[in-house]
Amino acid sequence: MSRGRRRHVHTLNVELRSRSYPILIDAGLLERTAVLNSHVAARDVLIVSNTTVAPLYLPALSAALTPRRLVPVILPDGEAHKTLGNLSRILDVLVANRFGRDCAVLALGGGVVGDLAGFAAASYQRGVAFVQVPTTLLAQVDSAVGGKTGVNHPGGKNLIGAFHQPDAVIIDTRTLTTLPARELRAGLAEVIKYGLMGDAVLFAWLEGHLDALLAGEPQALAHVIRRSCEIKAAIVGRDEREQGERALLNLGHTFGHAIESATAYKEWLHGEAVGAGLVMAAAMSQACGYLSAADAARVRQLVERAGLPAHAGDVGSQTLREHMALDKKVKGGRIRLVLLRGIGSAFMTDDYPDEALQSTLAAYSGAPR
Amino acid sequence: MSRGRRRHVHTLNVELRSRSYPILIDAGLLERTAVLNSHVAARDVLIVSNTTVAPLYLPALSAALTPRRLVPVILPDGEAHKTLGNLSRILDVLVANRFGRDCAVLALGGGVVGDLAGFAAASYQRGVAFVQVPTTLLAQVDSAVGGKTGVNHPGGKNLIGAFHQPDAVIIDTRTLTTLPARELRAGLAEVIKYGLMGDAVLFAWLEGHLDALLAGEPQALAHVIRRSCEIKAAIVGRDEREQGERALLNLGHTFGHAIESATAYKEWLHGEAVGAGLVMAAAMSQACGYLSAADAARVRQLVERAGLPAHAGDVGSQTLREHMALDKKVKGGRIRLVLLRGIGSAFMTDDYPDEALQSTLAAYSGAPR
Repeated sequence: MSRGRRRHVHTLNVELRSRSYPILIDAGLLERTAVLNSHVAARDVLIVSNTTVAPLYLPALSAALTPRRLVPVILPDGEAHKTLGNLSRILDVLVANRFGRDCAVLALGGGVVGDLAGFAAASYQRGVAFVQVPTTLLAQVDSAVGGKTGVNHPGGKNLIGAFHQPDAVIIDTRTLTTLPARELRAGLAEVIKYGLMGDAVLFAWLEGHLDALLAGEPQALAHVIRRSCEIKAAIVGRDEREQGERALLNLGHTFGHAIESATAYKEWLHGEAVGAGLVMAAAMSQACGYLSAADAARVRQLVERAGLPAHAGDVGSQTLREHMALDKKVKGGRIRLVLLRGIGSAFMTDDYPDEALQSTLAAYSGAPR
Repeated sequence: MSRGRRRHVHTLNVELRSRSYPILIDAGLLERTAVLNSHVAARDVLIVSNTTVAPLYLPALSAALTPRRLVPVILPDGEAHKTLGNLSRILDVLVANRFGRDCAVLALGGGVVGDLAGFAAASYQRGVAFVQVPTTLLAQVDSAVGGKTGVNHPGGKNLIGAFHQPDAVIIDTRTLTTLPARELRAGLAEVIKYGLMGDAVLFAWLEGHLDALLAGEPQALAHVIRRSCEIKAAIVGRDEREQGERALLNLGHTFGHAIESATAYKEWLHGEAVGAGLVMAAAMSQACGYLSAADAARVRQLVERAGLPAHAGDVGSQTLREHMALDKKVKGGRIRLVLLRGIGSAFMTDDYPDEALQSTLAAYSGAPR
């Protein structure tokens, strides 16, 4: 653990007036006592982590955070554990340790840990402080920023939750050195999403640097983390509660969430389902005449090169459609979709021919990949 | 059911900028289609009620609300059922009926129903519309207004929840005609609290009109409902998230919540525990030298005349103190208390002699009443 090393930390801000907060990005932040102390004010800190991440990073983080009262809760790893039952388990530990409203909950792990810990922080005593220390690429580029917290319901992904912004997001890029390749690829799905949604330059950059990213090249990873956080921070600052623009960040997610809930959150990583969802959103956009065949092919090719599935497997189009009907963007019984007018240009609509949706689902989920 | 009767409805507003909402107070509102339709916009409405209230008022409310898709959830009656388990049950019904983000949750019942339904509305799809139709005096004067929602934990009252303001509070004062006397008295505890906390005129009025209130005289009840809602609406408008002034509304509640959780939410009505809590807060204020013996006696006399307990029973002072330690106002390990400088003048402090708290607890919970 290094004390007081004077090193520049790349910092972005999510601008939400009195609830604005910083996103810090650097290698080794997890062990930097001075940085941690300046962003974790509470005396009592509950650290939520999982059985995979805790052995790797909890000792160093705990050492850097002392002296405080630290209580860990170590959950099983995986999307299938993002449940009300595990929320209740975290709350029980907070109560059992008599943590007060002036405590903090710190999430050390990926998206599942962050979403659960965040919902616990939102709900305990109607809201306590919350710090995100994301350790997967997916959490670093997406889920740790923006305050969406929650759990899954057997009937649908993220159906239960709260908006609860963190007080800080501390991204130690060095944690990616221990990230399994499958998890790295899942995180890239969200990065591709940012490019597709609103940044054609980023998308083209990804086409040119995908091999470096897949090889875990630190500069390349740091670039996509910064750029992704910049895009997300700006959108969240303008539309915290998803009244409009923020919904575009769900590009690929209506299809992806349906894949996840239809398979009981057990087979697919979230990012894998988003990868397939991006290809399906592009195909649907092409079927509606919004996107050229050439651009749809670019999407499919980049997703495939990233080692992500470009097909929903053998879920079945009817099953998938039923699960889509519970998406949070459904309005007046109609499924609203985020579609593409081009690379870098997403929009939301419920004005599409039903046959286009049916044929897309049939083509991408009717048969095994 | 009457349609379009042009009758003046007493209306107050809770001023929260874009989230401001009305409190409507009148006899017979439950059956007034025009009033209900102008405040319940959703096509799909989940009505949460309990086994006591539903048989009395659900048919009339449902008739007045048609045509819409109405789905009822009927819970068992009582504070012991304000649990995460019943929250989960409400959420299951929302999912099973494929309710979208554009649905509404309507609470028809007392404080337990309102707190549970409100937390479900806060959590489902990270927040849907919410309408309060309180049917107990306690809910009409206090819990239905202000957006505090949540459930109890075995370790402490209301430890898990959210701030989620309703879109409207519709108070049909005629529902009080079926309210059991014990519930009426429990509601009066919160009315006494408002007087004690900040309105000496209301307190004196209660001393003069208690018999009319206990007899269920409609004019007297309407007066205290209006005045209580005025006080609460003003405070919530100034301090929604309880950063300061709003905490004064917890006068008597730190003692009261401890009584409730120490008895597993099974024996005491919330208002009964608040009644005893007010007497204890006055005694503690006297022990600290803040309140005169004469004023402390006035508090005790009014609580006793209202038929409320003025003693915590045989809970035991040590048990009570342990439960107080989990109060949400604890800061830095110290229990902060709302005390009295006089009738109508409450303040919060953590600056009191420990012996004063010990002796108050011993005097009011050491032995059977």
